[in-house]
Amino acid sequence: MSSPSERLKALGLTLPAVTKPVGAYVPALRHNDTLLLSGQIPLQDGKIAYTGKAGGPGGRTLEDAQAAARTCVLNALAVAAEAAGGIDRLTRVLKVVVYVASNPGFTDQHKVANGGSELLADLFGEAGKHVRAAVGVAELPLNATVEVDVMFAAGQSEPRP
Amino acid sequence: MSSPSERLKALGLTLPAVTKPVGAYVPALRHNDTLLLSGQIPLQDGKIAYTGKAGGPGGRTLEDAQAAARTCVLNALAVAAEAAGGIDRLTRVLKVVVYVASNPGFTDQHKVANGGSELLADLFGEAGKHVRAAVGVAELPLNATVEVDVMFAAGQSEPRP
Amino acid sequence: MSSPSERLKALGLTLPAVTKPVGAYVPALRHNDTLLLSGQIPLQDGKIAYTGKAGGPGGRTLEDAQAAARTCVLNALAVAAEAAGGIDRLTRVLKVVVYVASNPGFTDQHKVANGGSELLADLFGEAGKHVRAAVGVAELPLNATVEVDVMFAAGQSEPRP
Repeated sequence: MSSPSERLKALGLTLPAVTKPVGAYVPALRHNDTLLLSGQIPLQDGKIAYTGKAGGPGGRTLEDAQAAARTCVLNALAVAAEAAGGIDRLTRVLKVVVYVASNPGFTDQHKVANGGSELLADLFGEAGKHVRAAVGVAELPLNATVEVDVMFAAGQSEPRP
Repeated sequence: MSSPSERLKALGLTLPAVTKPVGAYVPALRHNDTLLLSGQIPLQDGKIAYTGKAGGPGGRTLEDAQAAARTCVLNALAVAAEAAGGIDRLTRVLKVVVYVASNPGFTDQHKVANGGSELLADLFGEAGKHVRAAVGVAELPLNATVEVDVMFAAGQSEPRP
Repeated sequence: MSSPSERLKALGLTLPAVTKPVGAYVPALRHNDTLLLSGQIPLQDGKIAYTGKAGGPGGRTLEDAQAAARTCVLNALAVAAEAAGGIDRLTRVLKVVVYVASNPGFTDQHKVANGGSELLADLFGEAGKHVRAAVGVAELPLNATVEVDVMFAAGQSEPRP
């Protein structure tokens, strides 16, 4: 079995730089063996890569929204890796909540969420299988298409073998 | 005191079959003594029993939405029971988040949530009293009226007496 | 370093009375060293102080919504203090989820959330820095402008020094 960092490289991906929060909060914190993260929006190089609501005339396509969810998860991985001392120290993906800014009639939030869930499965294998909720919200900060809230388990000291 | 499984029977209820997730996630996972669940929609016999938004002209009535919440909670119980080795091994209901697909002007999300909370109280008594958030969202997967996210405590080994 | 209760007093604030939940749930519960709270709406003296959606013509201003978030957080502090045996026994703010009832085009949910986050930072200093998600929802219970879900850490026995 390869490690998450090896699989990340094999997928041609690199973790983005972690953006400093704008406000009185932090990107991540550890509580016992749980790593809690702030909600991630699809920032790329300091700009929102996906704005606007999913579905409907003039809205984002399902494929765009899935790419947005994947971008959010990459940002979450970057934040978690920085907090844990490397992506290979994340011992399990626990929970993912996917908020999709949704136009009326768009009811494929679960398919949007798969864009993020599949990346986690690709990187972590069995340890990437998480519980999940996906909902369609009215608006998101900075007009983001998707916001993703991820919770990891992270051991106190040992990296994954 | 009767057990949750006995009270379930006394209410004339049976736990539904657990639906396999469609996507790279799992219905439930244990983290230490906490049982995390994926968001549940009102599936019955493999179909969504309640679709459409709550409130407004042509929308779902409060009573329908409450029944939807109750159905979601029954599904959550089925998932949790399977993961924990039986409903009587769930030691406490911790937290419930109720997402209600809401038409403009519908502001009774807390009453909708009671449809699920009351079932948990009926089954678990004191151990069923949970913290809760109820919000009105724009859309839900598969046009579900309600999605419910439940967190249980589950001991490592012993069933409840 | 002053204590949270001393800073609260220095800010001229007092914790409001805790409102009894209307429904089969509880305002707070402890699970291990985590204090989980029910979602708080901006109740003041038993009435909702801020109703209506943020943004748009006729909607709540950003400043109103921030004040609503702050009021929600004050209510959360009151609930948590009652559950923990005093605000000084809350050892850390862990996570805050801010739901903002949002008119179309309002995308400043993160700025609304700052209204609550900054109060937590003022009271708890380093221990007040939390992870956060802020989303814009369609409707909230009782037409509240904001609902805030807070999770604290609380030691089993010792108050903060």
